[in-house]
Amino acid sequence: MILLSTPVNIYYVTGRVFSGYVCLTDDNQSLLFVQRPLDVETNDHIIPIRKVEDIPGLLAERGIDLPSSLALELDALTYNEVLRIRKAFSVQELENASLIMRRRRMIKTETEIEQLRISADIHMEVYREVPRLFRKGMRDIDFQIEIEHLMRKKGSIGLFRTFGSNMDIYMGNLLSGDNAALGSPFDFALGGGGVHPSLPIGASGELIKEGTSISVDMAGNYTAYLSDMTRVFSYGMLPDIAYKAHALSLEMHSRFKKEVKAGTSCAEIYNWTLAMAEKAGLQDYFMGANQKAKFVGHGVGLEINELPVLMARSKDFLEENMTIAYEPKFVIPKVGAVGIENTYLIKKEIVENLTSLDEEIQNLI
Amino acid sequence: MILLSTPVNIYYVTGRVFSGYVCLTDDNQSLLFVQRPLDVETNDHIIPIRKVEDIPGLLAERGIDLPSSLALELDALTYNEVLRIRKAFSVQELENASLIMRRRRMIKTETEIEQLRISADIHMEVYREVPRLFRKGMRDIDFQIEIEHLMRKKGSIGLFRTFGSNMDIYMGNLLSGDNAALGSPFDFALGGGGVHPSLPIGASGELIKEGTSISVDMAGNYTAYLSDMTRVFSYGMLPDIAYKAHALSLEMHSRFKKEVKAGTSCAEIYNWTLAMAEKAGLQDYFMGANQKAKFVGHGVGLEINELPVLMARSKDFLEENMTIAYEPKFVIPKVGAVGIENTYLIKKEIVENLTSLDEEIQNLI
Repeated sequence: MILLSTPVNIYYVTGRVFSGYVCLTDDNQSLLFVQRPLDVETNDHIIPIRKVEDIPGLLAERGIDLPSSLALELDALTYNEVLRIRKAFSVQELENASLIMRRRRMIKTETEIEQLRISADIHMEVYREVPRLFRKGMRDIDFQIEIEHLMRKKGSIGLFRTFGSNMDIYMGNLLSGDNAALGSPFDFALGGGGVHPSLPIGASGELIKEGTSISVDMAGNYTAYLSDMTRVFSYGMLPDIAYKAHALSLEMHSRFKKEVKAGTSCAEIYNWTLAMAEKAGLQDYFMGANQKAKFVGHGVGLEINELPVLMARSKDFLEENMTIAYEPKFVIPKVGAVGIENTYLIKKEIVENLTSLDEEIQNLI
Repeated sequence: MILLSTPVNIYYVTGRVFSGYVCLTDDNQSLLFVQRPLDVETNDHIIPIRKVEDIPGLLAERGIDLPSSLALELDALTYNEVLRIRKAFSVQELENASLIMRRRRMIKTETEIEQLRISADIHMEVYREVPRLFRKGMRDIDFQIEIEHLMRKKGSIGLFRTFGSNMDIYMGNLLSGDNAALGSPFDFALGGGGVHPSLPIGASGELIKEGTSISVDMAGNYTAYLSDMTRVFSYGMLPDIAYKAHALSLEMHSRFKKEVKAGTSCAEIYNWTLAMAEKAGLQDYFMGANQKAKFVGHGVGLEINELPVLMARSKDFLEENMTIAYEPKFVIPKVGAVGIENTYLIKKEIVENLTSLDEEIQNLI
């Protein structure tokens, strides 16, 4: 028996978010035990409860025995929540539903892919309008705020979900100049200092200086399914090294488009990407400066950081209908971040780029 | 020994957020074990680690014995995180640092109050400008988006922190018309349907209709310390019942300002507030329609829902330097929500209203 109670997995199974529990039984029944909203319409499968302790009795009434082993979201529920559920169900043996669901959610259905396509299309529409939002004399945060505003007007849901404790972020990440080199406490590919020590990531409130890049990695949260895309702008011309590194990122994407398909090893993608950076002598700038990300891509879906992860120690192989963000990036001292990120749909023999938008560095002046 | 690792408590103790652990020892030492950012400056008390398993050895090197009982944030850390730390420290007995810290954080220091005052001042500045953002023919979400945009331009940090699993929200809550009556899965005072089933709270995307109220309860996140304030606007004139209920909310606030001080019972405030609603015959509209909140206020600080809670079963008494949001509200069918929310600083003999701004319903046309 699997008992789910996090918004993301409840949404995955039921297409809505409620406070309560989804119980998936061994014989493939799914029962929804709803605490709130109180005005939910109930039926045989949607059952109002006051507290989790009500569930075992309600299962018994339906002839469903309590399991000897229960799968709970052990990577998302708090320790005290798990203890309370375990006691209510009188089970000793727990399995990790977080892992079960994260692995199940790796492969997207047609409906999920359709939602992600909608997000990606609006994501591109927004990025096309980014240049007209730029004004000389803007701070990085001012530029980000105007992009956020446009995103919301185009239907961004606002909040977007991440997996794990160390993933605080607002609407995405805009990095320019030296700020791109700053390490963040959070698990994103690049960091930035942020505007306040209580949220140390992203735009820092510094003026955007001539000769710096502006890396725009804002959320694609126009449906519950998130697209992930980075494009790079510049305020004036950049040093050659920045264009060289950006061109290398585009080459990496070309290779990704040529070689990757269902069956490709995730570790292998990481390894050849890193090897290309090393061969070009750009490894010092690769995936961060003072703090380097140890991955070059990841699954995307209801959460921005889904499985699989494209990293050296991954044992995963890509499968058909996975949706993967690939983001080989470089941080150039005094310039900022370059290199792009696309979201790809993995198919049997090829990949499809869901974020097919001009990839060059766009000069804003 | 207390070991903290959530952003909110790490910020509370250290004034910054990092990925890692703060260890508070019995002899009042605090040691910071930092995983990320990697570029943190280290010293005797700031120690880089790769993983939590490194900590016991580092404590031993400093002559600090492992405790027989360890306090961890059991209401915030995941089950698997707690198991991992417990194993690393070889402790069986756990105490709940979530509760310890939430109770400690109830009483604010002068510095914290100063931060909250700054938030409240900007919060008021933003609300003063709300009327000029309104346009006839706006949807509720359009109005909210313009307020969010202004908030960000005035320095809103963006993300604001909540305690508990069922508190998803974006930048606050704007409710108008029938949408105010909809129950939400989340633990906020009022609900709303939201614009997407993956985030069912707040503005619903409906046109703001003439004869409806617009309740604005947007975040006061201009520092890490959150002010909480609701003001009500109207599109045209409202039915008498709405003004009557709003006037009653203001009376409740008057009584709060007159009677409440250090030593007041939280349950008592809830009880007399409810009694006033009942005496006026407005109990059916009180604190929601289909789904009613069972509290009329709560502590505010680094999280929007701090302790104590003003509810019937509270055993808490207010203390000097608590900061309390008091929010007696009514939901009037077909009209929307009325009633205001202020953030009060509790003093020895009085309360101070930190959000002292015109409290009447303001007609936007």
